[in-house]
Amino acid sequence: MIENVVIIGAGNLATQLALTLFEKGIQVKQIYSRKIESATELAGKVNAKFTNDLSQLVSEADLYVIAVTDSAIQEVLENLRLKDDLLIVHTAGSVSMNIMEGFTTNYGVFYPLQTFSKGKKIDFSTIPICIEANHPSNFMKLEKLGAKLSTSVNQINSDERKTLHLAAVFVNNFANHLYAIGADILNDKKLDFDLLKPLIKETAEKIESLHPIDAQTGPAKRNDQSIINAQLKMLQDKPEFQKIYSFATESIFRLQQKHDHDLL
Amino acid sequence: MIENVVIIGAGNLATQLALTLFEKGIQVKQIYSRKIESATELAGKVNAKFTNDLSQLVSEADLYVIAVTDSAIQEVLENLRLKDDLLIVHTAGSVSMNIMEGFTTNYGVFYPLQTFSKGKKIDFSTIPICIEANHPSNFMKLEKLGAKLSTSVNQINSDERKTLHLAAVFVNNFANHLYAIGADILNDKKLDFDLLKPLIKETAEKIESLHPIDAQTGPAKRNDQSIINAQLKMLQDKPEFQKIYSFATESIFRLQQKHDHDLL
Repeated sequence: MIENVVIIGAGNLATQLALTLFEKGIQVKQIYSRKIESATELAGKVNAKFTNDLSQLVSEADLYVIAVTDSAIQEVLENLRLKDDLLIVHTAGSVSMNIMEGFTTNYGVFYPLQTFSKGKKIDFSTIPICIEANHPSNFMKLEKLGAKLSTSVNQINSDERKTLHLAAVFVNNFANHLYAIGADILNDKKLDFDLLKPLIKETAEKIESLHPIDAQTGPAKRNDQSIINAQLKMLQDKPEFQKIYSFATESIFRLQQKHDHDLL
Repeated sequence: MIENVVIIGAGNLATQLALTLFEKGIQVKQIYSRKIESATELAGKVNAKFTNDLSQLVSEADLYVIAVTDSAIQEVLENLRLKDDLLIVHTAGSVSMNIMEGFTTNYGVFYPLQTFSKGKKIDFSTIPICIEANHPSNFMKLEKLGAKLSTSVNQINSDERKTLHLAAVFVNNFANHLYAIGADILNDKKLDFDLLKPLIKETAEKIESLHPIDAQTGPAKRNDQSIINAQLKMLQDKPEFQKIYSFATESIFRLQQKHDHDLL
């Protein structure tokens, strides 16, 4: 059973995960960060030791969680100086589990499918936790740990996880960018972004009761060329937003047609 | 004071508006729809008369609300047979108030900035209601009516309303389309769309505490070409999604740069 962990990283995900594990009674033994200030700050919140030197990690934790940016995982692995049978996981959507092969005999992935900020405390209880492991006994340990944090623990292999991460980029990164575009458009005309907030929230809440295909509304769905052309013209000084408008409009129309065709 | 209304239309917005007005004690005198079944159904819910003939509208209501699709507003106006001083509003984001000039001497716009579905009851209390009128006395009447429904009543002219509607297309229509793309990507790999729902909701809720520019995360923001290229490759059978991915990625990167530059 996993009773204590070392967290490698002190970014958004590492912070939220450390805080939640600590709350749930899992001991956080140590926080590592390249920046000693970040390690110290997070360690202080979860009563842990801290270091900025990977060779100084405590040597007997039940689990080592690599929660760093995807492109830094390989470098972390290469600089670990741990026994070769300790359980290590990473938390990345788009990195295969096999990246850990050769560094330890016990490894897996612990991927919480959510967006994390340092400044906004996250409730883990409904976050889908996507777990993969190189051995059933490791899987069971990770599954039990996941179940302490969330009601949604899922066995997801590396290919599936990459698909989830791709979809997440659309519904999170790109959706958030649309909010930023909305804010930018209003800002240019001195209109308050608060006016859009109820719409943004309702759009997201609608998916609980309607599939997004059925929830689609607006000029693109209706193929209302008069409004589409007027709105493209309003964007003439913003060629990037105009491109996104064109392609999204075309894509909405085609996806609706495909859907209507599938129903025939 | 507006104590009773006629609703012209029985679509998503007309339905939610009629239900809410009825709840708030405003009499709904009559529902018009081209389809008599739609008029009858909605009228039954709000204790109103119904008709599918514009020449048969009741002649003495305090307010006539044209809540039909944008492109049908003109036709409705041309077929009204009302006294020329009755108060008429439309509810459209992208249609100027002046479309009503010549049809009556008292007119305005009553635009609730929200997405409506027939099947999902909407709480109007926080919806920004955007009001414009051809005369201060009409504005005051509409403002009072708005205040019965919502705490957010705003004076918004036709140009501003078009800007709001354009921004709404991004944060609602296009964001919802991204959800549909996410669902489509998961569906192809037999993964459950439910896995994305907590992420979608958190992405939308985040704007309450963080400006979207500051909430942005992901490979585009980090300019992580290795993941960007891998994800573009995963979309090779979906050229439209690939295009949206490319342009959104480029646009995120540029908007972040612009923002970082503005902060210098």
